[in-house]
Amino acid sequence: MAHGTLSIDLNADLGEGFGRWQLTDDEALLAIVTSANVACGFHAGDPSTMRRVCALAAAHGVRIGAQVSYRDLAGFGRRAMDVPPRELADEVAYQIGALRVFARAAGADVAYVKPHGALYNRIVWDEGQADAVVDGILLSGGELPVLGLPGSAVHRAAGAARLPIVIEAFADRAYRPDGTLVPRTEPGAVLHDPEQVVKRSVGIATEGSVIAATGDRIPVAADSLCLHGDTPGAVDLAVRVREALTAAGVSIRPFVA
Amino acid sequence: MAHGTLSIDLNADLGEGFGRWQLTDDEALLAIVTSANVACGFHAGDPSTMRRVCALAAAHGVRIGAQVSYRDLAGFGRRAMDVPPRELADEVAYQIGALRVFARAAGADVAYVKPHGALYNRIVWDEGQADAVVDGILLSGGELPVLGLPGSAVHRAAGAARLPIVIEAFADRAYRPDGTLVPRTEPGAVLHDPEQVVKRSVGIATEGSVIAATGDRIPVAADSLCLHGDTPGAVDLAVRVREALTAAGVSIRPFVA
Amino acid sequence: MAHGTLSIDLNADLGEGFGRWQLTDDEALLAIVTSANVACGFHAGDPSTMRRVCALAAAHGVRIGAQVSYRDLAGFGRRAMDVPPRELADEVAYQIGALRVFARAAGADVAYVKPHGALYNRIVWDEGQADAVVDGILLSGGELPVLGLPGSAVHRAAGAARLPIVIEAFADRAYRPDGTLVPRTEPGAVLHDPEQVVKRSVGIATEGSVIAATGDRIPVAADSLCLHGDTPGAVDLAVRVREALTAAGVSIRPFVA
Amino acid sequence: MAHGTLSIDLNADLGEGFGRWQLTDDEALLAIVTSANVACGFHAGDPSTMRRVCALAAAHGVRIGAQVSYRDLAGFGRRAMDVPPRELADEVAYQIGALRVFARAAGADVAYVKPHGALYNRIVWDEGQADAVVDGILLSGGELPVLGLPGSAVHRAAGAARLPIVIEAFADRAYRPDGTLVPRTEPGAVLHDPEQVVKRSVGIATEGSVIAATGDRIPVAADSLCLHGDTPGAVDLAVRVREALTAAGVSIRPFVA
Repeated sequence: MAHGTLSIDLNADLGEGFGRWQLTDDEALLAIVTSANVACGFHAGDPSTMRRVCALAAAHGVRIGAQVSYRDLAGFGRRAMDVPPRELADEVAYQIGALRVFARAAGADVAYVKPHGALYNRIVWDEGQADAVVDGILLSGGELPVLGLPGSAVHRAAGAARLPIVIEAFADRAYRPDGTLVPRTEPGAVLHDPEQVVKRSVGIATEGSVIAATGDRIPVAADSLCLHGDTPGAVDLAVRVREALTAAGVSIRPFVA
Repeated sequence: MAHGTLSIDLNADLGEGFGRWQLTDDEALLAIVTSANVACGFHAGDPSTMRRVCALAAAHGVRIGAQVSYRDLAGFGRRAMDVPPRELADEVAYQIGALRVFARAAGADVAYVKPHGALYNRIVWDEGQADAVVDGILLSGGELPVLGLPGSAVHRAAGAARLPIVIEAFADRAYRPDGTLVPRTEPGAVLHDPEQVVKRSVGIATEGSVIAATGDRIPVAADSLCLHGDTPGAVDLAVRVREALTAAGVSIRPFVA
Repeated sequence: MAHGTLSIDLNADLGEGFGRWQLTDDEALLAIVTSANVACGFHAGDPSTMRRVCALAAAHGVRIGAQVSYRDLAGFGRRAMDVPPRELADEVAYQIGALRVFARAAGADVAYVKPHGALYNRIVWDEGQADAVVDGILLSGGELPVLGLPGSAVHRAAGAARLPIVIEAFADRAYRPDGTLVPRTEPGAVLHDPEQVVKRSVGIATEGSVIAATGDRIPVAADSLCLHGDTPGAVDLAVRVREALTAAGVSIRPFVA
Repeated sequence: MAHGTLSIDLNADLGEGFGRWQLTDDEALLAIVTSANVACGFHAGDPSTMRRVCALAAAHGVRIGAQVSYRDLAGFGRRAMDVPPRELADEVAYQIGALRVFARAAGADVAYVKPHGALYNRIVWDEGQADAVVDGILLSGGELPVLGLPGSAVHRAAGAARLPIVIEAFADRAYRPDGTLVPRTEPGAVLHDPEQVVKRSVGIATEGSVIAATGDRIPVAADSLCLHGDTPGAVDLAVRVREALTAAGVSIRPFVA
């Protein structure tokens, strides 16, 4: 999908609690974003939370995406795993199927897939696991768009399978001149100044560019902007980003029609 | 569903492994039964096993049922749990949704629901959990028949929700004169003599009756006969039951058209 | 253990997060309580949290108790389970053993056992599971005191096995005239007025009595007072209870020497 | 530990079931081996199985080792995971602590550590995780020997921490001329001919050498020989290996005194 010059989607990870534990302020974020990446039970997301988030998302007209993950509750899906591709494809399909029940019960449907955490990062370069994620999507029976980084292995695999690809950008992450993200293990990888994050959000949406860590202006052609929902102040910042985008004439709308 | 005078369905629990561990001889049993109760991941059943069993079942023309369970891998779903009804309904829907992906990928669909183990026994009498199982089925979007014991709470709940009910009988379990099963904790609850099990199977299918533990002949109006697949000699016994039924003029066919 | 006239222990559930999810303000509560019921991984409590809480507890001179539970992360151990006694005993021993490593690494030891949630409530009356918990403690090799309700099945079992028993009271729960708690399912079961909770705490510690829901004053001979740590305002209330007790001349000290 | 010229230890993975699922013929193998690597609950091994295997091992005079693993029941610990070292160390300590309860209840103790599956292979080269495993052992409070491959990162780390190291060899795996194993992904990595496995076992124990895949004879200075227990015919082969070693004058005895 090409990014519209003056429109952008806002996505956030939602439903990332598990039973007694809650993490994301789902209700507040669903009033802000246009696409909800709903945890499907493998890194977070119990069935009741999935149902509630899907119902709320549908009520807000927010698109529902399957936030598929490695099976890793203890590590919140943040520990890369050498899962054989065949198993991974089946695990992806399982998660999509489970979420679909709740999306459809809410009168909506699973509209896209966004892999979570370590899996997201792994399939930027791991061709075998990237193919497996796409195989899982195909197995699940839907021609679902895949949210990811530009140039990622999973986008190549999705393209080869004729699945739509959706490019996302991060206003609170430092970029390298080549358009990749500065890894979290390096200093300055995450931007904490709300002012700066808001400004970069507008730049990405209106100019299709961002200032890299080196000071160079680089193109960032994003269909969607990822907002983080699990940090203190996350909701306030999300509100500010949305307001600034609107003030700049950017229409906030889902990438899925 | 009324049981046909000279036809019956044969069901068995399948796909009850988990990762490295396998339990049931799925391939052999799928050549015998007409309905496969496929484990959905909560007491057993990893995604890859679910996919394989669904593919095999579809290839054999065997109907696929969701063998939904309490979330209890460590106890194989055999430990009753006080799960609040709302949570239980959502867990049931989750499992059906996950299995549906693999059933549909195989060109079939989830055709019925058979609760597993402790949940099966609990919803014979627990109205709240019985309602929850039916709510979960409705939430999953299908008007799926529920396999269970005659007179069970879950059958009353299913009937009230206009879901089809399917009555099953057990040829290897002792019956009380009132048509209920002798609990496994009592001596003689399970019959181990293959000869006797075969004979009772034929009696259930052709006469709609069985000899209770007291010696009385009692009516057992079954749509389906449950075969156990996880014991030594299970496959051999299943073959013998099927052959004896066929020899007695009973047509073996799924209760779902 | 007899309760001292002017001394009492304060206990709270700690370390009840799991991986990414945190629940209790462990550091703040460890400055207030004298006994820490540390989650052992079955309803909550990942190994790293267990290590951190044990280290903090030891540094504060707070006693470390094994908060053993049913194996139920999804339900936070709040769903009663029909676990066979032999399995339950082994699960209890497993949890104590795992916690002991972190307690000893901190220069302390597991000093007592407090069953969690649904297990706590079940072994008030279920003799089989009560015996199993005591068997698990004995299997673990320690003569550990058991924290529980007066007259509970687990206290009878512990007494029969010559394990010390420790009686606890709840300042924020309504009592019946017979000294049992009003079930949470009934209105008024939990008291939310901090003023009242503080006052009842002092009454329990100084007079050994509390006003029941009927208005009668009843004896409550407690060795330990349970403070809740997972609700908003929990830490503030705990501070107030401790200060009020001290002001009333009550010495706050662990029931374990 | 130096390997004795005419003595060797035999080790096998035991207790690798989980609840309803059983895998290894623990009783038969405990009559053959001298060291039992007991699963601790993370890749396999429920508490009741752990207790039973420890009791049997102690009764046979077989040493009990903690077969620590990544937390991965679904993948049987065979999927490498990027677990942060701090978490991994705590997970290792947790598992050792849990097993120690059952070993001590049987009148024995945890006598050594053998990492399982993907963790075993990872710490051949991953210094961070190798250090973490050793940190976990130290945290658990025991100076436990570590079973592993010669030249592995975990052996270097164990040596640096002054933990004893125990070298093991595999009679059923192909070796490279440099003494490392041919990876399982390559053809011929696993030897299936019992005759050959028996012969190589004797060669390792009596000559300290084995014929590599290239045909070269290479030195293999093993303190322990690993027998596999989860394949068909495993017990028969183990018996033959033990008998052949005894016939060749090799004393079978644990590496732990």
